[in-house]
Amino acid sequence: MLSNTYLVCVTFLLLMVDYSKIFANKIKDIKDEGRYRQFIGFISSPDQLPYKIDCEHKKNVVVWCSNNYLGMGQNEKVIAAVKDSSTNIGAGGTRNISGTTKEVVELEESLADLHQKETALTFACGYLANQTTLSTLLSIIPEVVVFSDEKNHYSMIEGMKVGKSPKYIFKHNDVDDLRSKLDLVGKEVPKIIAFESIYSMDGSIAPIEQICDLAKEYNALTYLDEVHAVGMYGKHGGGIAEEYNLMDRVTVIQGTLSKAFGVMGGYIASSKDLIDVVRSFAPGFIFTTALSPILAAAARASVEHLKFSSTEREKQKEMVKKVKSSFTKAGIKFAPTETHIIPVIIGDPVLCERASKMLFNEYNIYVQHINYPTVPRGTERFRITPTPYHNDSMVEHLTSSLVKVFEELSIPLQLKNLHVEYN
Amino acid sequence: MLSNTYLVCVTFLLLMVDYSKIFANKIKDIKDEGRYRQFIGFISSPDQLPYKIDCEHKKNVVVWCSNNYLGMGQNEKVIAAVKDSSTNIGAGGTRNISGTTKEVVELEESLADLHQKETALTFACGYLANQTTLSTLLSIIPEVVVFSDEKNHYSMIEGMKVGKSPKYIFKHNDVDDLRSKLDLVGKEVPKIIAFESIYSMDGSIAPIEQICDLAKEYNALTYLDEVHAVGMYGKHGGGIAEEYNLMDRVTVIQGTLSKAFGVMGGYIASSKDLIDVVRSFAPGFIFTTALSPILAAAARASVEHLKFSSTEREKQKEMVKKVKSSFTKAGIKFAPTETHIIPVIIGDPVLCERASKMLFNEYNIYVQHINYPTVPRGTERFRITPTPYHNDSMVEHLTSSLVKVFEELSIPLQLKNLHVEYN
Repeated sequence: MLSNTYLVCVTFLLLMVDYSKIFANKIKDIKDEGRYRQFIGFISSPDQLPYKIDCEHKKNVVVWCSNNYLGMGQNEKVIAAVKDSSTNIGAGGTRNISGTTKEVVELEESLADLHQKETALTFACGYLANQTTLSTLLSIIPEVVVFSDEKNHYSMIEGMKVGKSPKYIFKHNDVDDLRSKLDLVGKEVPKIIAFESIYSMDGSIAPIEQICDLAKEYNALTYLDEVHAVGMYGKHGGGIAEEYNLMDRVTVIQGTLSKAFGVMGGYIASSKDLIDVVRSFAPGFIFTTALSPILAAAARASVEHLKFSSTEREKQKEMVKKVKSSFTKAGIKFAPTETHIIPVIIGDPVLCERASKMLFNEYNIYVQHINYPTVPRGTERFRITPTPYHNDSMVEHLTSSLVKVFEELSIPLQLKNLHVEYN
Repeated sequence: MLSNTYLVCVTFLLLMVDYSKIFANKIKDIKDEGRYRQFIGFISSPDQLPYKIDCEHKKNVVVWCSNNYLGMGQNEKVIAAVKDSSTNIGAGGTRNISGTTKEVVELEESLADLHQKETALTFACGYLANQTTLSTLLSIIPEVVVFSDEKNHYSMIEGMKVGKSPKYIFKHNDVDDLRSKLDLVGKEVPKIIAFESIYSMDGSIAPIEQICDLAKEYNALTYLDEVHAVGMYGKHGGGIAEEYNLMDRVTVIQGTLSKAFGVMGGYIASSKDLIDVVRSFAPGFIFTTALSPILAAAARASVEHLKFSSTEREKQKEMVKKVKSSFTKAGIKFAPTETHIIPVIIGDPVLCERASKMLFNEYNIYVQHINYPTVPRGTERFRITPTPYHNDSMVEHLTSSLVKVFEELSIPLQLKNLHVEYN
């Protein structure tokens, strides 16, 4: 009897799935690889950009890796838009069921105007805007074929994964490769070319005009992710497409409210008929609560401010130039880019983390080490983003600190370049 | 020569894809079906819940279909948490790259405490919390098999679509059917049972205890969506699982900040090891900007308030009882439910819309008509959600108005019940 019970118990234990062990093993894998992520919590220092106080040590650090590119998250008009709001904090429903607010409608008008498109549509975040818009376009356009830049953001890739549309991945920013792939598909077949204007981790810029030329020739829609460009480029902050006077040639411009605009949320701007379809069919739009009206009010204040003020953009460009020049003088190599993103490739997750920690602990500088899956393995990096609030002495301090830390960790200043690293 | 050019032109035009026509046809389809959605824009009436002013006619209407169930979107502590915030409006980065704020960390502690779990994790919205958590669990647990209630929300279904895990759909809230499906898979195989506590559109409640018993017997993880229950049920607003004292038996509790808590955002609460895996692997978490710190502060104030105040819950329950009783007396049939959601099934998209418009235009009552894909075709409905801010005369007015409108449109008061409609 006893041995029977024993056997039953042993069999039961053998059949048990140890979920904790499965999870622990996954975590062990990333720890072994040196890419386990520990989030650093920060307290804002009001009116003290680019400083933040870290929660653990309560010390002030200079932040060099924020996507609050222009400091609009602390802009007085943006703060006032929130504080003066006399509305619900949340929308209280989906757009269809009681959640459409005056604030969201006005924000969408402002965004349509920014991109000179017929209309715009907001989402809880840029990720969802990409994922659900692309998956919806793929599902409603019969026989559509997608052409996607190999370095597109995961949110776009996730949107294109859904469904059975054929996909062609073209080489990064390579117009010839795109043409050769377009040639594989008949002209009568519907097509979408999906790409970004500025690639976040490399700072590379897409050849928008040439891609639009190909789109015209091959009869394709164009879907352009401008999340790292809106607010920053173009006379009114309309992005790289505005900078190059190409907004009318792009079918869909996708953007974010959470980077240069300093708030939260994502959006698309396009023709009325296309947006009517997304509004009516996209699950990530239909089944989500509308954007908080206080955030919508804040975002609109930010968008409208940056339509007419170039001060922030100019100051930021000046600081970017200073950092690049300072790095060059000190011999710190960075990926070639004309943008505000300065990638310093270290190429090793452990070294990258050690350098980041040393900067933080010894020099009060916060530059997050960026590892896989945000960047490909072997291209681990610092991604430095100067803002209008950094100053000359901060630049000098950043450069000298990097030189010292790299020396101490035997990280060569003359790093391999980005493209070599990618192989 | 001319005829050649002509031929080329004709051929070119024949080969052209008319995207506008594709979009227009899709919109025509939903218009023909009577389910084209026109969003009604609203202006908040501060301190005037449950009223809102519609943007177009500038008139005050009583809102009977908000998910701001307890009015917390206008709660003074929640508003104060926003107005007193001295932080950035946006987080300025992903959680890993400069976006982790004190406010988000404190909110997650508050949520973990609410559900008596080791830890919690926030997302831009509940949709993304479901989609990315489920797809991540499916991708990292080898050979996992999913069991999903047939009425699960689209965001859960989208999460379970990704990947190649076998899926079993069990009949709505049917424990016997779930058992028969679990029997098809070996005990040694990892399993997830995904379900909701309150189904939003029907107001049905899951047999959580029996499902957890099965999960134990068959060695499965449980994933429970409590978005329509958090803040509303249980002594501290922990949801239906708290109400039935079952929180410790559920592996993952997923919730939202945008309904009863009146703000915006989604979350999960679970064990440290599970959340560590989601935090480390889920694309919809890794690649999104962290929740706005002002929203996080507002949400925390709301969660903490509802942990200790039952006033809102009690008042709301009272109003729900009054509406149900008033409907019953007037002979208006609604789907049987013990929850705060009162579904009145009309079963026809055109009639449903006409009734909604008539209530709005002639009676200053806003009850959105709900159609496919939010509910199955043939079960188009009103979904009435009383709040603590409705009063007796509003209830009387709603009931008498519904009776008059239904009479005028020849909609029978004694509607078929929900389950008949679903066939």
